[in-house]
Amino acid sequence: MSKPSLARGTRDFGPEQMAKRTFIFDTIRFYFQRYGFLPLETPAIENLSVLMGKYGDEGDQLLFKILNSGDFAGKLEPADLHSGYKVLTGKVSEKGLRYDLTVPFARYVVMNRGTLLMPFKRYQIQPVWRADRPQKGRYREFFQCDADVVGTDSLLCEAEIVMMLHDILPALGIRDFTVKMNNRKILTGIADSIGAHGMEGPLCVAIDKLDKIGREKVVEELVERGFSEESVTRLDPIFDLAAEKDPFTYLKSLLAESETGMKGIAELETVWQLVEQLGPENLKLQFDVTLARGLSYYTGAIFEVKANNVQIGSISGGGRYDNLTGTFGVPGISGVGISLGVDRIYDVMEELGLFPENQTTSTQVMISNFDEQAFRFALGILPQLRKAGINAELYPDSVKLKKQLDYADRKHIPYVILIGSDEMASGTFTLKNMKTGEQLKLALPAIISHINAG
Amino acid sequence: MSKPSLARGTRDFGPEQMAKRTFIFDTIRFYFQRYGFLPLETPAIENLSVLMGKYGDEGDQLLFKILNSGDFAGKLEPADLHSGYKVLTGKVSEKGLRYDLTVPFARYVVMNRGTLLMPFKRYQIQPVWRADRPQKGRYREFFQCDADVVGTDSLLCEAEIVMMLHDILPALGIRDFTVKMNNRKILTGIADSIGAHGMEGPLCVAIDKLDKIGREKVVEELVERGFSEESVTRLDPIFDLAAEKDPFTYLKSLLAESETGMKGIAELETVWQLVEQLGPENLKLQFDVTLARGLSYYTGAIFEVKANNVQIGSISGGGRYDNLTGTFGVPGISGVGISLGVDRIYDVMEELGLFPENQTTSTQVMISNFDEQAFRFALGILPQLRKAGINAELYPDSVKLKKQLDYADRKHIPYVILIGSDEMASGTFTLKNMKTGEQLKLALPAIISHINAG
Repeated sequence: MSKPSLARGTRDFGPEQMAKRTFIFDTIRFYFQRYGFLPLETPAIENLSVLMGKYGDEGDQLLFKILNSGDFAGKLEPADLHSGYKVLTGKVSEKGLRYDLTVPFARYVVMNRGTLLMPFKRYQIQPVWRADRPQKGRYREFFQCDADVVGTDSLLCEAEIVMMLHDILPALGIRDFTVKMNNRKILTGIADSIGAHGMEGPLCVAIDKLDKIGREKVVEELVERGFSEESVTRLDPIFDLAAEKDPFTYLKSLLAESETGMKGIAELETVWQLVEQLGPENLKLQFDVTLARGLSYYTGAIFEVKANNVQIGSISGGGRYDNLTGTFGVPGISGVGISLGVDRIYDVMEELGLFPENQTTSTQVMISNFDEQAFRFALGILPQLRKAGINAELYPDSVKLKKQLDYADRKHIPYVILIGSDEMASGTFTLKNMKTGEQLKLALPAIISHINAG
Repeated sequence: MSKPSLARGTRDFGPEQMAKRTFIFDTIRFYFQRYGFLPLETPAIENLSVLMGKYGDEGDQLLFKILNSGDFAGKLEPADLHSGYKVLTGKVSEKGLRYDLTVPFARYVVMNRGTLLMPFKRYQIQPVWRADRPQKGRYREFFQCDADVVGTDSLLCEAEIVMMLHDILPALGIRDFTVKMNNRKILTGIADSIGAHGMEGPLCVAIDKLDKIGREKVVEELVERGFSEESVTRLDPIFDLAAEKDPFTYLKSLLAESETGMKGIAELETVWQLVEQLGPENLKLQFDVTLARGLSYYTGAIFEVKANNVQIGSISGGGRYDNLTGTFGVPGISGVGISLGVDRIYDVMEELGLFPENQTTSTQVMISNFDEQAFRFALGILPQLRKAGINAELYPDSVKLKKQLDYADRKHIPYVILIGSDEMASGTFTLKNMKTGEQLKLALPAIISHINAG
């Protein structure tokens, strides 16, 4: 007889958490739809050929792999055990669990490109799985909420992503947040301008850590990664860019000789203008030249969102990628997307006390169960309540009233109907307000009006 | 460069299917809540110790198992390869994918029994995974919609399940369906009454096939399974029970000497009375003494629902279990539940043409994109539409109008706003109804009213 437990890094979501999470999902979905995005869901299980090699070596390690069905080891030779577990994995596993929503989306686009309406605006809200070391705020199964547009390189898409964040986060109660933006082309331009051509990859990896390890350590890392002392010194004005009054103009003077860099600046300036024209209110949109983001597939704008005054990492991130489907043999489909991290948003909302009250229950009224006679009588009332649009239940057992009221109280059911012999004779019932304790004697139609009004 | 494919037996759900599936899920969720059920979600990944041994040998085979992370084979010896793959599985895999929603629910109840409010009414709508051989209508990843009550043996729960089906299926447009019900205790009573004490297990397995293989083959199977000729002959009145006018009374005479059997009949009679008092309309509730259902954990009422006039198996099933949590060391928690099969319901609705029209899109209006100037102008209109509660998008690229209208048409967007130089000068825009082709010249407030009214 085993004492059951959850798999490490996974969670149950009971009714209270579900109510809060549903509030977040519904709000995000509402705005995704307001901006014209359509829903997509892909399977949890993907062929490893689809997943492997898309997230770097570390990502390949963090993929959950599924053991082949049946006699998975039938063809293994003892020598296979010495081939190393990575090779062995390929012999016993062909499938894995979705690691993010972007690669399955790219697969979907490639497989359906003949019939897919372009530009294709899709949103996707599903769990993903990563065999990461579980720790506070990091789970092995967690949800992502993504919206992407593919099939257009219009910078309107970038501006609309900013505006969606501008709508979604305040609707969740998160009013103080900063959208940081940069452009990968600018990072390429910087590599060019400091004489480190083609080294934007390691530059991004190092700069991405600026927040965590500080400027000095980033410089050390760059030197270790083969950047010359001179190159590193020429980065100084970049690090100091945040202090500039007009960073775009100043950056143009720095990157004047890098065509790619200048294009990146121009793209950002356009996005800024478009956002301005869409009329945001209280938006903190910040150009951050040190924002790099880890994933290698970004080629244009990159975003990150931070809730201010809360010690929680970024709650959203994304960017433009020009060749995500290229790895599946279909080059030239440009796309841009954003991913919202529900778990972090949940934590921010908990910390700031932003969840609306009374999200917990669906039941609006409970009918008490005194005895067999009252129970039979209640069976005639119950369907009338439901037909009137009221979520209702009848306590199933004839136990002490105290226990029944305790049930209603703990389930946050706002009203209880008490039916005793007097009530059955008179046709007026006692409606108890569980919050105030107030008791009203009302006939059924009045009870229905009262609950529907409340 | 790999050509990507879906893992066998899995599916993508594009926007059109998502709209239809969402309609089904929302309807089911709506009624689950109307009856006082609260949401629960459990992780896709469970420890194999939770899952194994709960679904019989075949179920154990059909569980998707997850390869341990890291060097899963580090401690394997060549001799392990000869131990058989079942033993080997235990050495390389500790986790698996959820096979149904009932066992994870039982685990949740056991793990939270100290704080859980009883009776606990929960619903759960999530995918499950089975390494079954894929075929038409059978997938390796599919959704279940379950509602269960645990912590009470009140037969009101059985009656409410019938009433939920009575509400849910017509709300989906499925008006002609039959709810078949039986009781495991009756099957025990039958085994007793034909002198085959304790053989209700094999009796159920054989009788369960009556629909598929017919009476003669069932009799053959029973003889093979060790039932005496005499026992089998004494089954004749059971097979003929459907023809009886008052099957309960007739069955009582047959099972008079089986206490368990008589209890089963009494329970069903009570459920029938309770359902009657809850006032169903056009409900086909049928007692089917040959309904057995495969799962061994049922101990009371069992249900199955069949859509009539469609060649599709049962769309829902369930029953009462008195000891599901017993396997986790916590006996004595009685529960009863129902599971709705979304894929079969989807197929029934497709076959009968029951999906509402215009479920596909979320976008209500698209603004066309003639040229740079009109595009800039549209940027001022777009947020006003959205603020007025309208799902709106601006076509991102200045391409030929035909292509833009084709996009709107294929995305089933009902209205397009055309903005040209005349429109910008006058402040009245052309609103094109994409279904009728009608074009109106209206100012923005009138456009908003028109769309919101339509």
